[in-house]
Amino acid sequence: MMKYNELSKEQRDAELSALWEDMNAIKEKGLQLNMARGVPSPEQLALSKEMLNVLYAEADCTAEDGTDCRNYGVMDGIPECKRLMADVLGVTPDMVMIGGNSSLNMMFDTISCFMNHPVVPGNPAWSLIPDRKFLCPVPGYDRHFGVTGYFGFEMIPVMMDDNGPDMDKVEELIQDPSVKGMWCVPKYSNPTGISYSDEVVRRIAAMKPAAPDFRLMWDNAYCIHDLTDEHDEILNIFEECEKTGNVDMPIEFCSTSKITFPGSGVAAMAASENNMRVIKEKYQYQTIGYDKLNMLRHVRFFGDYEGMKAHMKKHAAVLKPRFDVVLSKLGTLEDTGAVWFNHPRGGYFVSVNVMDGTAKRVVALCKEAGVNLTGAGATYPYGNDPYDSNIRIAPSFPSLEELSSAMDVFCICARIAALEKMNALI
Amino acid sequence: MMKYNELSKEQRDAELSALWEDMNAIKEKGLQLNMARGVPSPEQLALSKEMLNVLYAEADCTAEDGTDCRNYGVMDGIPECKRLMADVLGVTPDMVMIGGNSSLNMMFDTISCFMNHPVVPGNPAWSLIPDRKFLCPVPGYDRHFGVTGYFGFEMIPVMMDDNGPDMDKVEELIQDPSVKGMWCVPKYSNPTGISYSDEVVRRIAAMKPAAPDFRLMWDNAYCIHDLTDEHDEILNIFEECEKTGNVDMPIEFCSTSKITFPGSGVAAMAASENNMRVIKEKYQYQTIGYDKLNMLRHVRFFGDYEGMKAHMKKHAAVLKPRFDVVLSKLGTLEDTGAVWFNHPRGGYFVSVNVMDGTAKRVVALCKEAGVNLTGAGATYPYGNDPYDSNIRIAPSFPSLEELSSAMDVFCICARIAALEKMNALI
Repeated sequence: MMKYNELSKEQRDAELSALWEDMNAIKEKGLQLNMARGVPSPEQLALSKEMLNVLYAEADCTAEDGTDCRNYGVMDGIPECKRLMADVLGVTPDMVMIGGNSSLNMMFDTISCFMNHPVVPGNPAWSLIPDRKFLCPVPGYDRHFGVTGYFGFEMIPVMMDDNGPDMDKVEELIQDPSVKGMWCVPKYSNPTGISYSDEVVRRIAAMKPAAPDFRLMWDNAYCIHDLTDEHDEILNIFEECEKTGNVDMPIEFCSTSKITFPGSGVAAMAASENNMRVIKEKYQYQTIGYDKLNMLRHVRFFGDYEGMKAHMKKHAAVLKPRFDVVLSKLGTLEDTGAVWFNHPRGGYFVSVNVMDGTAKRVVALCKEAGVNLTGAGATYPYGNDPYDSNIRIAPSFPSLEELSSAMDVFCICARIAALEKMNALI
Repeated sequence: MMKYNELSKEQRDAELSALWEDMNAIKEKGLQLNMARGVPSPEQLALSKEMLNVLYAEADCTAEDGTDCRNYGVMDGIPECKRLMADVLGVTPDMVMIGGNSSLNMMFDTISCFMNHPVVPGNPAWSLIPDRKFLCPVPGYDRHFGVTGYFGFEMIPVMMDDNGPDMDKVEELIQDPSVKGMWCVPKYSNPTGISYSDEVVRRIAAMKPAAPDFRLMWDNAYCIHDLTDEHDEILNIFEECEKTGNVDMPIEFCSTSKITFPGSGVAAMAASENNMRVIKEKYQYQTIGYDKLNMLRHVRFFGDYEGMKAHMKKHAAVLKPRFDVVLSKLGTLEDTGAVWFNHPRGGYFVSVNVMDGTAKRVVALCKEAGVNLTGAGATYPYGNDPYDSNIRIAPSFPSLEELSSAMDVFCICARIAALEKMNALI
């Protein structure tokens, strides 16, 4: 196949009508396929079935410190769960707070906390800063942008490349004291799948923001979500910030949502002593403690961090073939020059850049053909992708057969949109 | 035994030295007993053991609408759980939002929400009202006061009597537009154990607060927590508020913490459409949905509301003898005139008023003798009981034998403190 920009008008028109024939044939099939969200498949959920039985089978719900996990108490989590999640987060257990079922909820609660209670005592709470701003590396996670949007932050997009956010731009933007933080998914970033390079992490750790209460929302959602043995490794943000005297800057989050059961997992956060003081002051009023039976269930099921990592290999065995289908189908488009995409070694997404100005059209065409994708623009604050180019593909949920069909549809739609666009431009 | 205020100085001194002999004998025993918090006993927790197995045993985690409860989604709860908790709350399922493991957390989140997002659009958010105030019927629940204290409300105590809060006072106070709400535990109030009379509920429903965004935090924590078949009934707040055109005023809360497992239960709230719009706007960013497996676990375990009520009778069978011990021991003090206490027909507490100015002394004496009580004053905002008289006794956790010993200690300490006080006064 030739590059589309080397085709004549006649060749493009011929290609377009062939593609529309394929498209119309597909529409008649009445497909209903979904590649919209990063949701584990039933095969993956089945991997954790025994966790539902482990407390009953062992007939004892006592934590290692003697706490009856069936009763009230323990605000920051039972010790064995703090230890397990500390290993996941790469910190010491004393830095960890175990939450409910969702790291998103912990992130929301953290921003919410600082809205009314200053994270650095003596500074104004964020609700008192009328022009408060947050840095949003793009493309990024729509639910992150949802949180800061809800709390009235102006969200400033910062472009990502294969190494992470554009640090020249970040270093310039943090000179503004009303810039209060930055969202980061440092490993297998949602959606681009890239991991922050060592240089980027070091530059982040070395930042000197004008705002003393600038905070990194370090969402390590995919920290152990590798697809292959050859996987990405990122520097430990707390270790790097320790070196630069910035240990109060990062707040790290993770959960077992994509390890055991999404919505019934265990979330955790890690932060410095100063940050934890403010955060735990809040939790002291917010809760008597989160679900200790679910914490115990997780610990009993995995045993320890090694057990959890072994479990992740089972997830990888289910996920890897799905990513392979997506990547091989996208590979058939490469010659056209109509798409650019990454080859992630973990995480939940393949980020595809279709021809500028066609992402919305591709998503709409896919929808007509019965394939549901994340809305174009969703990976940008305010849903505004200035290039109308980025589409997030989530390969995890459909079966391999469904995924194959869905990707065929996607490829046809991406081609159609590209050719239409070129016809319109020229 | 004679009333203490009819004793001569000599008689009081003789009584005091006899009591101190008893006290010193007790101290030598080195007791370690706890009547501090309303915590179910191991016997009660065992009643729900089968709930830990029900999902595994049935090998299917699909909600009635086809939702896979092991996966992401469903922001406001699965339909069968909304229906069950709607029955508990006395509302229709469409008014219900299911939360995480704690109604306290939902109350905190509700106040937190209104701090930055006006519950009545067009009004200033509560964080913008510098002299914001909240009405706190006293004695009341320390964790309620903790929440409004944390968010900077001035907390105005309103005395409770056997029918509920002093409504003359409430009606006067709500003329101040900076009074934004009131905490209520309408049934088996924490700690007094009384239930709001029909007249009080009707007067509450008919209130015309100066603040259009005044909200009732209607914490129906003990709504089905009856000790006997002869139990209290309260009017339905939503029905009463419907009649008075005040349906946006109440927000109701409950949980299964004292029905299944505290900390691993299911919390729920109910509110009008207008309130829910604001609250769900928040939840949409705060969570992808709470723990659906735990919701399903509860529904499968109970079947329906009738099943849950049958389960509560088993709790009552464990709790009733404990309340009987407390009440019969307190009964031995009645002739002295040194205490006044209630006879609750449900809930988790017996509220005791010792002689004015002696509550702190009684709690301290009990502690010396190895009996831990809720701190004196904890039932008042800022820990400030102006009469230093109220002590909350929580009979649920200790065994009957422990409780009997603990109450013997309590009675001795209450006598000593009363006699000391009289000697000091006269």
